[in-house]
Amino acid sequence: MTSETPTVEMHPSRWGDPAAAAELPESALALVDLAFGLQDRPAVAVAHPPEGGLAPALVDELRGLVGGEHVLVDDQTRALRTRGKSTPDLLRARAGDLADAPDAVVRPDGRAEVEAVLAWAARHHVAVVPFGGGTCVTGGLAARRDAFAGLVSLDLVRMKRLLAVDEVSMTATLEPGLRGPEAEALLAAHGLTLGHYPQSFEHASIGGFAATRSSGQSSAGYGRFDAMVVGLTAATPTGTVALGSSPANAAGPDLRQLLLGSEGAFGVITSVTVRVRRAPEVTAYEGWRWPSFTAGAEAMRTLAQSGLLPTVLRLSDESETAINLADPSSIGGTDDAGCLMITGYEGTPEQVEARRAAVSAVLTGLGATALGTEPGETWVHGRFDAPYLRDSLLDHGVLVETLETATFWSNRERLYADVRAALTSSIGDGALVLCHVSHVYETGCSLYFTVAARQAEDPIAQWQAAKAAASDAMIAAGATITHHHAVGTDHTPWLAQEIGEVGVRVLRAVKAELDPAGILNPGVLIP
Amino acid sequence: MTSETPTVEMHPSRWGDPAAAAELPESALALVDLAFGLQDRPAVAVAHPPEGGLAPALVDELRGLVGGEHVLVDDQTRALRTRGKSTPDLLRARAGDLADAPDAVVRPDGRAEVEAVLAWAARHHVAVVPFGGGTCVTGGLAARRDAFAGLVSLDLVRMKRLLAVDEVSMTATLEPGLRGPEAEALLAAHGLTLGHYPQSFEHASIGGFAATRSSGQSSAGYGRFDAMVVGLTAATPTGTVALGSSPANAAGPDLRQLLLGSEGAFGVITSVTVRVRRAPEVTAYEGWRWPSFTAGAEAMRTLAQSGLLPTVLRLSDESETAINLADPSSIGGTDDAGCLMITGYEGTPEQVEARRAAVSAVLTGLGATALGTEPGETWVHGRFDAPYLRDSLLDHGVLVETLETATFWSNRERLYADVRAALTSSIGDGALVLCHVSHVYETGCSLYFTVAARQAEDPIAQWQAAKAAASDAMIAAGATITHHHAVGTDHTPWLAQEIGEVGVRVLRAVKAELDPAGILNPGVLIP
Repeated sequence: MTSETPTVEMHPSRWGDPAAAAELPESALALVDLAFGLQDRPAVAVAHPPEGGLAPALVDELRGLVGGEHVLVDDQTRALRTRGKSTPDLLRARAGDLADAPDAVVRPDGRAEVEAVLAWAARHHVAVVPFGGGTCVTGGLAARRDAFAGLVSLDLVRMKRLLAVDEVSMTATLEPGLRGPEAEALLAAHGLTLGHYPQSFEHASIGGFAATRSSGQSSAGYGRFDAMVVGLTAATPTGTVALGSSPANAAGPDLRQLLLGSEGAFGVITSVTVRVRRAPEVTAYEGWRWPSFTAGAEAMRTLAQSGLLPTVLRLSDESETAINLADPSSIGGTDDAGCLMITGYEGTPEQVEARRAAVSAVLTGLGATALGTEPGETWVHGRFDAPYLRDSLLDHGVLVETLETATFWSNRERLYADVRAALTSSIGDGALVLCHVSHVYETGCSLYFTVAARQAEDPIAQWQAAKAAASDAMIAAGATITHHHAVGTDHTPWLAQEIGEVGVRVLRAVKAELDPAGILNPGVLIP
Repeated sequence: MTSETPTVEMHPSRWGDPAAAAELPESALALVDLAFGLQDRPAVAVAHPPEGGLAPALVDELRGLVGGEHVLVDDQTRALRTRGKSTPDLLRARAGDLADAPDAVVRPDGRAEVEAVLAWAARHHVAVVPFGGGTCVTGGLAARRDAFAGLVSLDLVRMKRLLAVDEVSMTATLEPGLRGPEAEALLAAHGLTLGHYPQSFEHASIGGFAATRSSGQSSAGYGRFDAMVVGLTAATPTGTVALGSSPANAAGPDLRQLLLGSEGAFGVITSVTVRVRRAPEVTAYEGWRWPSFTAGAEAMRTLAQSGLLPTVLRLSDESETAINLADPSSIGGTDDAGCLMITGYEGTPEQVEARRAAVSAVLTGLGATALGTEPGETWVHGRFDAPYLRDSLLDHGVLVETLETATFWSNRERLYADVRAALTSSIGDGALVLCHVSHVYETGCSLYFTVAARQAEDPIAQWQAAKAAASDAMIAAGATITHHHAVGTDHTPWLAQEIGEVGVRVLRAVKAELDPAGILNPGVLIP
């Protein structure tokens, strides 16, 4: 079955569905003015990518492989496939810089066509950037093009089929171009769900979830995306690999885990087999107040270590609670509200009731104040909206960006303090640094930071300095450079420190074996 | 803290602690005679390994690295480090064939000494077989020695420390030479447990659990060993890698999962950081009867897919239930007993009571008959004993061996039928083929087969034919060649089919990068 939903193209320099863009409410604008001073920093009206550099004979050859209508070289299509959606990506696009535009956008359908495009690219030394939803925030769609005969975006938008459903094993095989809502709609027809809801859900793709080890807002209940994957197929320039003989096994290293997180640098994922669940009959989301971030985080640890997790579990620190980004209309609420926790439950009525009662008893026992369902409902309705808010803030001269990490529980306080200090001291006076925990494990958790500051003259340099300081702090604290946003080009220097020289050599060896011409996403992932 | 327990050396041609060996009860002998006809097939009284081939100058150099008393070249030590404990391994040793004996046994202490030994071996082109507990059943300790200047067993027996405990994060860092009971004793001093109890538990080592992706009898509650690992350090001939920045992350491929299952072919694991749990306050094991293997397996699927698993969950098929290998004194019980399921619960009294009630309600609702705690207690007391029984049966001319696989739930019946048929038709008339399920996942389960047959003239060739037929059936059914016994040398031809040509090339590329001289476990893992 194929998703028939037409793909919503995002604006080249803004997030999301252009029809859904929203201006900041007046009340918020006044507060933003107070905090940062409003500036007028509009995007350029029209930007054009540089002339495509791919030789016409090569374009013709490509057309022969996938059909003429599936090789696009017009400016608009190329602009829409330029970079991802990090704040630096947006700032560059807003300034009219589309220098990273591909020469052509090629839309193969099916594994055989992907294989043909990769063989063509290897033969002619053309760089290939696999493209799913375009939501990357770590520079993973801005490949190096030096020394190549050209650069094409390999757009998986035509590969949108639900290839198989196994309701006995509770697995589904999905094509990589399916966007989050498309995959969920196809599964819902069988009464199933994947339960994977990252903030990018509305636009990100199945292939991207796998290639970047995405983690969604319901990870406490459904797990990380890489934990859902039981099989996958990937086309490389030197052959296709199909993995997934069993849920788990001892047949050597788990090569699935080598392709998950490979960010298009080893191959193009052409199908993913995932564990699915029955679509929930009921859902319930609610809010809790904690006296401090530490008290709330300790409660999360208690839940994770007692195997008693809700489906959604999220805790904002004092600053994020006060700002409450999820609800722009309430920005500027009381400053002394402690820390907001959101808990969510999904399943059958009996499951939800039992789990909710058990979790609530633990939280109450540990000192939380129940806030009822309203904060939960507010959160669930606004949970994909923050990136829209960023665009409005950029228009008004406020730099907003996020970064995230993870560590073991005993290191959480240090990591939080060190990254906060690095951001605060590097980005400029009056910056806001917010944080939440949204992914927990028995042994540790993620920390997700949001930073807002008045845009300096060169906001990209401003952010890069802050990002470098925060990244250095993460590595110095022994934490990961990214819990769920992948490496892209932005994180490669710190990945090298995280996995060490031997780890880097392993990645390079695998890359050299599968992609000896080095055409796949050059400069991405591999330090 | 170091384990001070002296390591129990297993007999070179028998399983386990020589002091614990047990003869078959009379009642069982009579039945074995009836089924297979008793033969007298004793092991040779004394066997000597061939003269060690390592040049004396090299042995001296090795002594300089780790100390003279930690390089052993005597026949007895070399015999005890010859191969593992598969039935073919035992049959060879019983026939006096110790051709695979190492030239020397070297016992480094600590990472630096391991690194020094690997550098020495690479320099002199000496093959190295990392040795933990010696319990391998897939030929993983019988490396190729052709074209090498010698072969040494790198015995990790001196590396038995608990290096760190983090009771906040609930992790522990263990050295690879710790045997199962030693690791549990060190953790128990902190009120903690790993909860990893494979049948080889009493002798197998932490390093071996990691290197082979072991899975224990409590995997329903504690997970597979690879799922417990959050960090590890491995020394390779070209450098040491330390991984484990966080419980999970998106910092590229998960390289931990490349070293887990690498069976000493990529490097020597020098420490493992594992998730631990509070030691259970109470345990309860009980038995259930199902009318058929299918009914019981469907109940396991229901439990796994509803997130309602006991700590132990095991189901014997009709044949295994009738034989009941776990209780030799009861061999030959009624033939019409349906299928025995064992459920076990561990935790606080409240956890055990709640989980037991919920699971029992499901099982009763699906048609199981409660058998009370006696079958559970019998199972738990006998659960490490089956390998001893094998030795007695070999003495009496009965070939006994096991093999195992895993698949998705919808393929379980086919895999069971096909492997049974392959074994039955290949091993000779009158063979017994028994099976149980002991590891379950949301999407599938393992199948563990035990085969007993009258020993032919050449029992090794007899078993190899049966093993090949069963392995072909697994691959033809799309299942894995091994759920938890690793690849060794025995499974390499089928691994190549399971992961395909591209997968094999990836393994070879990683091997070439980390071990360019190819000294680590040559012939093991890599097809």
